[in-house]
Amino acid sequence: MAPDTTPTINAALMAGNRRPLAGYRATHFLWACSDGVARITLNRPERKNPLSFESYAELRDLFVALRHAHDVRAIVIAGAGGNFCSGGDVHEIIGPLIALPAPELLMFTRMTGDLVKAMRHCPQPIVAAVDGVCAGAGAILAMASDLRYGTARSKTAFLFARVGLAGCDMGACAMLPRIVGQGRAAEWIYSGRSVEGAEAERWGFFNRLVEPDALVAEATAFARQLADGPAFAHSLTKSMLHQEWAMDIDTAIEAEAQAQALCMLTEDFGHAYRAFAAKTKPVFEGR
Amino acid sequence: MAPDTTPTINAALMAGNRRPLAGYRATHFLWACSDGVARITLNRPERKNPLSFESYAELRDLFVALRHAHDVRAIVIAGAGGNFCSGGDVHEIIGPLIALPAPELLMFTRMTGDLVKAMRHCPQPIVAAVDGVCAGAGAILAMASDLRYGTARSKTAFLFARVGLAGCDMGACAMLPRIVGQGRAAEWIYSGRSVEGAEAERWGFFNRLVEPDALVAEATAFARQLADGPAFAHSLTKSMLHQEWAMDIDTAIEAEAQAQALCMLTEDFGHAYRAFAAKTKPVFEGR
Amino acid sequence: MAPDTTPTINAALMAGNRRPLAGYRATHFLWACSDGVARITLNRPERKNPLSFESYAELRDLFVALRHAHDVRAIVIAGAGGNFCSGGDVHEIIGPLIALPAPELLMFTRMTGDLVKAMRHCPQPIVAAVDGVCAGAGAILAMASDLRYGTARSKTAFLFARVGLAGCDMGACAMLPRIVGQGRAAEWIYSGRSVEGAEAERWGFFNRLVEPDALVAEATAFARQLADGPAFAHSLTKSMLHQEWAMDIDTAIEAEAQAQALCMLTEDFGHAYRAFAAKTKPVFEGR
Repeated sequence: MAPDTTPTINAALMAGNRRPLAGYRATHFLWACSDGVARITLNRPERKNPLSFESYAELRDLFVALRHAHDVRAIVIAGAGGNFCSGGDVHEIIGPLIALPAPELLMFTRMTGDLVKAMRHCPQPIVAAVDGVCAGAGAILAMASDLRYGTARSKTAFLFARVGLAGCDMGACAMLPRIVGQGRAAEWIYSGRSVEGAEAERWGFFNRLVEPDALVAEATAFARQLADGPAFAHSLTKSMLHQEWAMDIDTAIEAEAQAQALCMLTEDFGHAYRAFAAKTKPVFEGR
Repeated sequence: MAPDTTPTINAALMAGNRRPLAGYRATHFLWACSDGVARITLNRPERKNPLSFESYAELRDLFVALRHAHDVRAIVIAGAGGNFCSGGDVHEIIGPLIALPAPELLMFTRMTGDLVKAMRHCPQPIVAAVDGVCAGAGAILAMASDLRYGTARSKTAFLFARVGLAGCDMGACAMLPRIVGQGRAAEWIYSGRSVEGAEAERWGFFNRLVEPDALVAEATAFARQLADGPAFAHSLTKSMLHQEWAMDIDTAIEAEAQAQALCMLTEDFGHAYRAFAAKTKPVFEGR
Repeated sequence: MAPDTTPTINAALMAGNRRPLAGYRATHFLWACSDGVARITLNRPERKNPLSFESYAELRDLFVALRHAHDVRAIVIAGAGGNFCSGGDVHEIIGPLIALPAPELLMFTRMTGDLVKAMRHCPQPIVAAVDGVCAGAGAILAMASDLRYGTARSKTAFLFARVGLAGCDMGACAMLPRIVGQGRAAEWIYSGRSVEGAEAERWGFFNRLVEPDALVAEATAFARQLADGPAFAHSLTKSMLHQEWAMDIDTAIEAEAQAQALCMLTEDFGHAYRAFAAKTKPVFEGR
């Protein structure tokens, strides 16, 4: 009779795939996590929270690590001091790039693209809280989030054309058209112009407009709702929204049949049914 | 000289592909068909028209059979008693699912997915007439229709997360983003919240809002317009909207060149031209 | 030591790929080009600017040739006399088509599709200026442009169903759903109805509504902004918007990393950086 090695295998699997991050100490931005809801705050308010090579890399590494962080179930990303993010810093990023040869340039654009990939591949839904300036790579961070709360005074610009670059940056030519429509995305990207909150909400870029003072609280409240929900099921929703991007309908329906059958075997499905039968509110465990 | 077997072959082909359904007798919902316009009415108004295992299966089989029903040219789907559909019944569906093993769960999710596939593959355009509650699988039925008329008081919710499940149900993560945009679809699916008629119309989920009393009549009037139009051409439009879902533009243009050339060989194209030349209204035959 | 043949090769490459078109003499429409901004004006105003076999073919050939025209950096397409384009002429196109056999019909539908392909493959962004009637193939020309300015009185109709044809014409079933959403596109295409400017703007078909008297000037001003911008980068934006149509997100991000790294090696990127550092406005060379 073969020995039962299952427990050992499970322990090893768990060790490799459940690495807590709630207590993460960030270097280039602020990180706080309370009962499953994490908040990333870009925090160079005197310059409207630009990104640097270092903050790009740390964000990328953090979002990759979040894939295995069972103690984080939803994420809010915001900026300090009334602005979201002014994008890649002109002096710290654009200046150095001017002098670089092709291989290093590709290394840079891949690093920025890898940040977006990591945001789309981590299991936690991401809510962007966008106030004030949201420009360049900042607009990309908002776009790459699962959903976006904005303010009326926010100004979102995909301003790559203004610095002599193409609008195809970090997935913008693929993702923005699916969020606001192909025609609006084309004009937004070609022109590099700033779109104010009301217009961006009308186009479906923002899910809601909120008063600046309430913005982070409202975005956090939505993240809290998600974190207290069926987190495993939410992670599959996120995964399928990603996977079905370029899938035909019939294939997508079969993929969803498999994914949903898996969710029907989770404890949360039973919790919801029993709570309904007992006329109480379900308490989800996220598994 | 080989015998000409064409007529025999044609007769067999016709017999297999022209099976009338206007006189269909439905068991788990109402069915009525008048001169090419069929109406499906979900009819358990005391429970807001939930679906059961039996009604799912009958709807699936009906939409599959509609592929060969030449006497039905457009379809309206509605609910009785001021609500569209409350989705899978908690007692008749969710309860039994809790106890099922993986193979039977996949059998169920495939059955529900096959209903959506059949709705997308039948040649008849489908107009959903949505009043009141439109939830869970009910929201999916509306989404899977070709277009949707709603009422201001309608409440549409993809409430899978509320019962501990993922939003990837019956194609929702593929189809809803293309109807209302990726950001709005994400928030709608993650939150499980009810969206009222005005907001759903603003997002493009509903094509029109109609007064409740006039809803079915208006939806039927549009279906009548389609049924009296070039039905064969409409069926190709539906087929191409489906096929081109994940096709690149150049391939789609070639596919459309072939499909449209086929339509130019139909009698309806000639009818339209001659009517135009005679300054009369064309009478289409649907072939 | 091998002889350096680079200059010779470059000269041949340039000769084949830099063929000026600013001075093009059009036969079936008007063409004017001023400092990189070209304007095509459909010019049969007494019949609302219909297309004929000849004008289709000339437009197709012109847009194919624009791929190599370095002296044209943005394009405006408009109609004379208060209408954009009434589509394929009933007498000059539809009448003859009625009598054609399958191979010639496919030759025609491929010619029309090739016009759309050429519009999507030329490097210049195209701004449609749409006033009055915009119907059938005219609506397709607007749809196939990069963006669209309209007027309140414009009436856009994909009226193929009205002449007994399918809505799958020149890419409409692929492209229109991505511009206005799947549900709105389905209703627009199935019904063949005219949509007025305000509704089309609300749906994202038009980027802006402009007063009729100012329409061409405003569309030209936007084209001017693009032509004076980083034209090479703009051409890559256009190319990527096209290529990423049916690409999954991860692949699109890698494709954009490569394309953007290429742009970072252009002179325009340096011009923009140095202008920023000097607090002046960059002068782009389009290379």
